[in-house]
Amino acid sequence: MKKQSSNAEMEMLKCITEKFTRHPDQLNRLSEADAEIISFKHRTSDFLILKIDGLYEELQQGLYEDPYLIGWMSITVTISDVAAVGANPFGVLMALQLPDTFLKDKRWYSFFLSGINDACAEYGVYILGGDTNSGSALSVTTSAAATIDEGKPMMRSGIQAGDLLYSTGKPGLGNAFAFSRFFDKKPDVVYQPKARLKESKVIKKFATACIDTSDGLFPALSVLSEINHIGFSLQQDTANFVNIHAKNICASAKLPFWIMLAGPHGDYELLFTIKPIDKDKFEEACHDASIDFIEIGQVNSDQKIRFISENNQIECGTADIANLFLEANSDVKKYFDLLMKQHIIWHKKNK
Amino acid sequence: MKKQSSNAEMEMLKCITEKFTRHPDQLNRLSEADAEIISFKHRTSDFLILKIDGLYEELQQGLYEDPYLIGWMSITVTISDVAAVGANPFGVLMALQLPDTFLKDKRWYSFFLSGINDACAEYGVYILGGDTNSGSALSVTTSAAATIDEGKPMMRSGIQAGDLLYSTGKPGLGNAFAFSRFFDKKPDVVYQPKARLKESKVIKKFATACIDTSDGLFPALSVLSEINHIGFSLQQDTANFVNIHAKNICASAKLPFWIMLAGPHGDYELLFTIKPIDKDKFEEACHDASIDFIEIGQVNSDQKIRFISENNQIECGTADIANLFLEANSDVKKYFDLLMKQHIIWHKKNK
Repeated sequence: MKKQSSNAEMEMLKCITEKFTRHPDQLNRLSEADAEIISFKHRTSDFLILKIDGLYEELQQGLYEDPYLIGWMSITVTISDVAAVGANPFGVLMALQLPDTFLKDKRWYSFFLSGINDACAEYGVYILGGDTNSGSALSVTTSAAATIDEGKPMMRSGIQAGDLLYSTGKPGLGNAFAFSRFFDKKPDVVYQPKARLKESKVIKKFATACIDTSDGLFPALSVLSEINHIGFSLQQDTANFVNIHAKNICASAKLPFWIMLAGPHGDYELLFTIKPIDKDKFEEACHDASIDFIEIGQVNSDQKIRFISENNQIECGTADIANLFLEANSDVKKYFDLLMKQHIIWHKKNK
Repeated sequence: MKKQSSNAEMEMLKCITEKFTRHPDQLNRLSEADAEIISFKHRTSDFLILKIDGLYEELQQGLYEDPYLIGWMSITVTISDVAAVGANPFGVLMALQLPDTFLKDKRWYSFFLSGINDACAEYGVYILGGDTNSGSALSVTTSAAATIDEGKPMMRSGIQAGDLLYSTGKPGLGNAFAFSRFFDKKPDVVYQPKARLKESKVIKKFATACIDTSDGLFPALSVLSEINHIGFSLQQDTANFVNIHAKNICASAKLPFWIMLAGPHGDYELLFTIKPIDKDKFEEACHDASIDFIEIGQVNSDQKIRFISENNQIECGTADIANLFLEANSDVKKYFDLLMKQHIIWHKKNK
């Protein structure tokens, strides 16, 4: 007679999830219900915020290989969007496509879980549930739930000409990291962006609109331009506000600075607009809350993007830079060639 | 001068989603916010229900090829879990990994969208948002949000020995369909299961526990057994309650009936338990609401599953059948061999 064995799939699920802390408001234990049940008795939010996002292309292209970073980013990409609407996330659902090799590699899996757990702890969220498929290629999809506990959500719409453009940090780290992965492994670019949740609580009191730079600065500007039928002037030479890693790479590889802001790999900063009349109050509130910010430009009524790079005064359509990655069919090397070609065109025009 | 072009990614998103109806309570239009914003002012639910589920293995193995079915099942797999907890779903987020070939095939894509739209209309849910990646293999992950507008959610726990076991329909269609896809294309098995939302509203008033049969009958029984530390006796010969398509296949291919209940491909029926004292009231409520149900067994205090197939009285561990698919390393042909081998062992034992 065969020994009574337990359900192998439930055992596997237990192994995969045993390191996750349960949300105190979650009613069901692991496997105890077909869906996740969260007590909502004490929540009084007027808004429920939901977001789904996935890591797939970043893994396929080899941009993320470190299992800790993959775990960290799985949570961060989705929570960053929650931060951009000014919401308080409480939980994340996770769908995994996991090749057996990864699951059997205990070291890999343990670092992956640590990345997830550290990100959850950083953002005060819990893994509520998930779905695991064995697959030929690794992919992670996360879905976050959040509430707005005070005031209203931020949107990408609401910008008016004259508004001031701010970022929570100097843009360009995402592309600097991508460059160090794809073209020159020498520069040691530390990449572990933090979703700007803390910052968003202050920003939402003042911002007319907000978006995260998950696809880089220019793609974010392009989206804001199109939705609000406006344009932007970046107020200083890009050299003055590009991230230090990006700046160093540009200096040593002789690249124009604006290329580090072209995307598509993101910085996960918040990019937002403030009415000029709120400028002082906003900056004071940031100082009080020890929040970094940088003013990088202003909103124009015509749908153009204007900026200065390598002493070139550049004016282009709001989607021109954002569209180059798709024009290159998402081929990283072809994309880089298109960026350099564009730079030469602008440079010649300015002579 | 280049003509002002629009953001290509936003255009693509518009094409992908233009056929979806927006939820009346959703504040943001398409692309208007980083996350989806749903007004929750008028909702008074004490529980928020969330679920993530994916179609991946079914697509990789070629089980689903018809784009309409893929769209329909993308929504149904997740809503079926929402039904099993007795909740009212209102929205779905969808993450796509879509090979370019599918996106460019307008006929394929239009049927895929129709399947999604028809399922959303059937269940009264809306696509709230999503994420699209171009990928080498098709996969669809959906995440549903729901509320409990009356009473409490159903869980998989709460069963006691003596409870009666019911299903919303005769089990076995999922495996019959899989058999017709993998082994013998002759039998025309129509497979488009409907998540049992309407049924769950009545069931939740009486059930001590509930689970959907998304992995087939025996795997669902195995999960209920393990969580509740009980077992089941199926009360009739399996020939009496197996789905008609499954029955016909068994007859013509000379297969034992129980194999059609072994999983792993599901029927998406609800499987639930009722206290004997509530039997009459429950069945009357079902008749009043024109809801189909079938009583298929009862709960035992010892952790065994007992059933009759081809005149064999079978008693096995609660996970024995459920574990066979993993034992076969998810290889369909190997799995089928394991099932037949198991049948021969039981058959000899009974002689």
